[in-house]
Amino acid sequence: MQNKLENKLAAQPLDFESFFSQKAMEMKASEVRELLKLVETSDVISLAGGLPAPETFPVDIIKEITMEVLSKHADKALQYGTTKGFTPLRLALARWMEKRYGIPMSKVEVMIVAGSQQALDLIGRVFIDPGDIVVVEAPTYLAALNAFKFYEPEFLSIPLDDDGMKVDVLEEKLKKLKAEGKRIKFVYTVSTFQNPAGVTMSLERRKHLIELAKEYDFLIVEDNPYSELRYSGEPIPPIKHFDDEGRVIYLGTFSKIFAPGFRLGWVSAHPHFIRKMEIAKQAVDLCANPFGQVIAWKYVEDGHLDRHIPRIIEFYRPRRDAMLEALEEYMPEGVRWTKPDGGMFIWVTLPEGIDTKLMMEKAVAKGVAYVPGEAFFAHRDVKNTMRLNFTYVPEDKIREGVKRLAEVIEDEMRRLK
Amino acid sequence: MQNKLENKLAAQPLDFESFFSQKAMEMKASEVRELLKLVETSDVISLAGGLPAPETFPVDIIKEITMEVLSKHADKALQYGTTKGFTPLRLALARWMEKRYGIPMSKVEVMIVAGSQQALDLIGRVFIDPGDIVVVEAPTYLAALNAFKFYEPEFLSIPLDDDGMKVDVLEEKLKKLKAEGKRIKFVYTVSTFQNPAGVTMSLERRKHLIELAKEYDFLIVEDNPYSELRYSGEPIPPIKHFDDEGRVIYLGTFSKIFAPGFRLGWVSAHPHFIRKMEIAKQAVDLCANPFGQVIAWKYVEDGHLDRHIPRIIEFYRPRRDAMLEALEEYMPEGVRWTKPDGGMFIWVTLPEGIDTKLMMEKAVAKGVAYVPGEAFFAHRDVKNTMRLNFTYVPEDKIREGVKRLAEVIEDEMRRLK
Repeated sequence: MQNKLENKLAAQPLDFESFFSQKAMEMKASEVRELLKLVETSDVISLAGGLPAPETFPVDIIKEITMEVLSKHADKALQYGTTKGFTPLRLALARWMEKRYGIPMSKVEVMIVAGSQQALDLIGRVFIDPGDIVVVEAPTYLAALNAFKFYEPEFLSIPLDDDGMKVDVLEEKLKKLKAEGKRIKFVYTVSTFQNPAGVTMSLERRKHLIELAKEYDFLIVEDNPYSELRYSGEPIPPIKHFDDEGRVIYLGTFSKIFAPGFRLGWVSAHPHFIRKMEIAKQAVDLCANPFGQVIAWKYVEDGHLDRHIPRIIEFYRPRRDAMLEALEEYMPEGVRWTKPDGGMFIWVTLPEGIDTKLMMEKAVAKGVAYVPGEAFFAHRDVKNTMRLNFTYVPEDKIREGVKRLAEVIEDEMRRLK
Repeated sequence: MQNKLENKLAAQPLDFESFFSQKAMEMKASEVRELLKLVETSDVISLAGGLPAPETFPVDIIKEITMEVLSKHADKALQYGTTKGFTPLRLALARWMEKRYGIPMSKVEVMIVAGSQQALDLIGRVFIDPGDIVVVEAPTYLAALNAFKFYEPEFLSIPLDDDGMKVDVLEEKLKKLKAEGKRIKFVYTVSTFQNPAGVTMSLERRKHLIELAKEYDFLIVEDNPYSELRYSGEPIPPIKHFDDEGRVIYLGTFSKIFAPGFRLGWVSAHPHFIRKMEIAKQAVDLCANPFGQVIAWKYVEDGHLDRHIPRIIEFYRPRRDAMLEALEEYMPEGVRWTKPDGGMFIWVTLPEGIDTKLMMEKAVAKGVAYVPGEAFFAHRDVKNTMRLNFTYVPEDKIREGVKRLAEVIEDEMRRLK
């Protein structure tokens, strides 16, 4: 058998490429993922990942809930579900969004998805025609770029600062586009503790963005996986809170406040938009996994979610602090970084002239890894940035990793002079 | 709050339609689903659904496995997974396919998906350019039509008989297309206990189809959710068994041999194709839910799957028999139906002139429901057929349902004369 298999794989009589669609020919594996595969097999300290710490997974709660679900709700949990999602979960999330963020919401405004990645794909499917202008932050979440790209939009990048997307720069662009008779379809923003930059859009800019959406008639896709992970500072309402017209499509996820292994997220939007996304979802996977949905329902409904979030925060805060302290202690002058009040990432900007993708090999040789910033820019036009994660690795390793990284950067800066 | 919400929903100041993509404008909700929603709320005997019986879900096994997984493998089950799927599960499935179907297989030929519906969407994404010719059976699985349609293929329908797709008709079409300089991209077939027709492609036709695929250079998508549910007759190897070039993309699912609530299926194909589908999947949902995957791994690996399948068969066989007997007993002359050796469905053909979609209202008034056959035809050109399901409803209700249905049909036939 093994020989037959080897023959089969070796023979390759087919012209495989001749079968692929045009778009499939253009699909490329993420270089970052390929890079990280190398790192995972060595004893490098990786500040590159984007994973929650497994120590934050509420295993005992999950055991308890799951036994209850299998005893009382197996008929729902093990059967096919509706495309919109398990109704009690949708209702529980609508109530939670209302209580937590002051956003009045009914279950018809909530659809359950297979992680917010799926929501990004569905948004592409439902809203983007080839050539449509989609505004993203620079930098932005790279998997959102990847999801949207299939639908062939034209990306318009708006820079960030410590207060998030520079909405005044967006306004200038909108004026120019309007003069050219052009319209944008939507603005995509990770509004709070942004991935990759860690920054949060200020209250003033949130309000300004909503005003612009009305004036220039576009939608806002607010991706909010991190806002519950706040280690310092005062909470700030989601952009969705200020939405009185149904312009904001809000994405939430269980991956950072429960566990990623359930692959569950949700979309909160006007029922008109939810309905169309529901029809689109029917064709791609029928429904999100009901087993996870019924478990997630008990997690929210029985108050576990609200009780568990503070534990996650207590676990991550020292890690965030350790990374900020280590950056302060070790980084040479000329290196800048963001100081996030929450989330999972810090964004580091090196002096012009350093290419963090090229530097990666040296860093790995020194025993530390990061994600080069280039892939987070829609136009891949910035070379001297990197994303560091502080949630996955313990404090002492964070400190050691940042120290090693600082040495690599110092070397590189010397070489440049 | 409630008032604010109502105002928001009532105001609708947005021109929602103006935001949708061209393709989204064309997306329609399935009429069948809308119909079934009505049925579910009444006391009609529904032979319309496509659901496995919840009595076949191995709840106790799932409890046992899940506790073990949460105790020993929580780090894998609750974390993000790789896009290709949980490696031990891929390995277990490769071994199972080899043992069960005599198909030599390695784990690089297996990718885990969010139900085989997702595989259908990924196949569309990776293989179909607008205008590509995709061959389907007439009738065929309607959700496959729905998944492929987004990618704008031209469907070529090949009729079925009791031995499955009429491969000789396909051959005639292929000759004609070749003469016109055209090629087909792939043939989609539910090869065993077809949905909706219940028929199985004969051994001879399987071999013929593979020969044609070589001669005319196309791929075969073999969707095989039902072959394990065999109540009579001798097993027949999947088309994939005869594939020595990597032309067959095989789809399997846990929905009918474990439980649909995990939303897990798998694709077995040449590593070149798997690789491209993996890249495509990265953009749409990152990975199938790891929690379910680790549980499914234990289910296969520990032999539960092989021990449980006979129990499902014993549960369904009397229901299949009850439906065949009732059809024989009650149906008027002029009505024909398939006699499946397995699966979940029987396909009924009424005399020409009866439109089963129009007849549905009368049937529901008489207390029975079915799926009108029209939607299973790519070109919606056949009106006098229907799909009956025999797995969800107990034997006495099956008999009563078929009896009511026969009365409706007799009425309709009288009316036609």
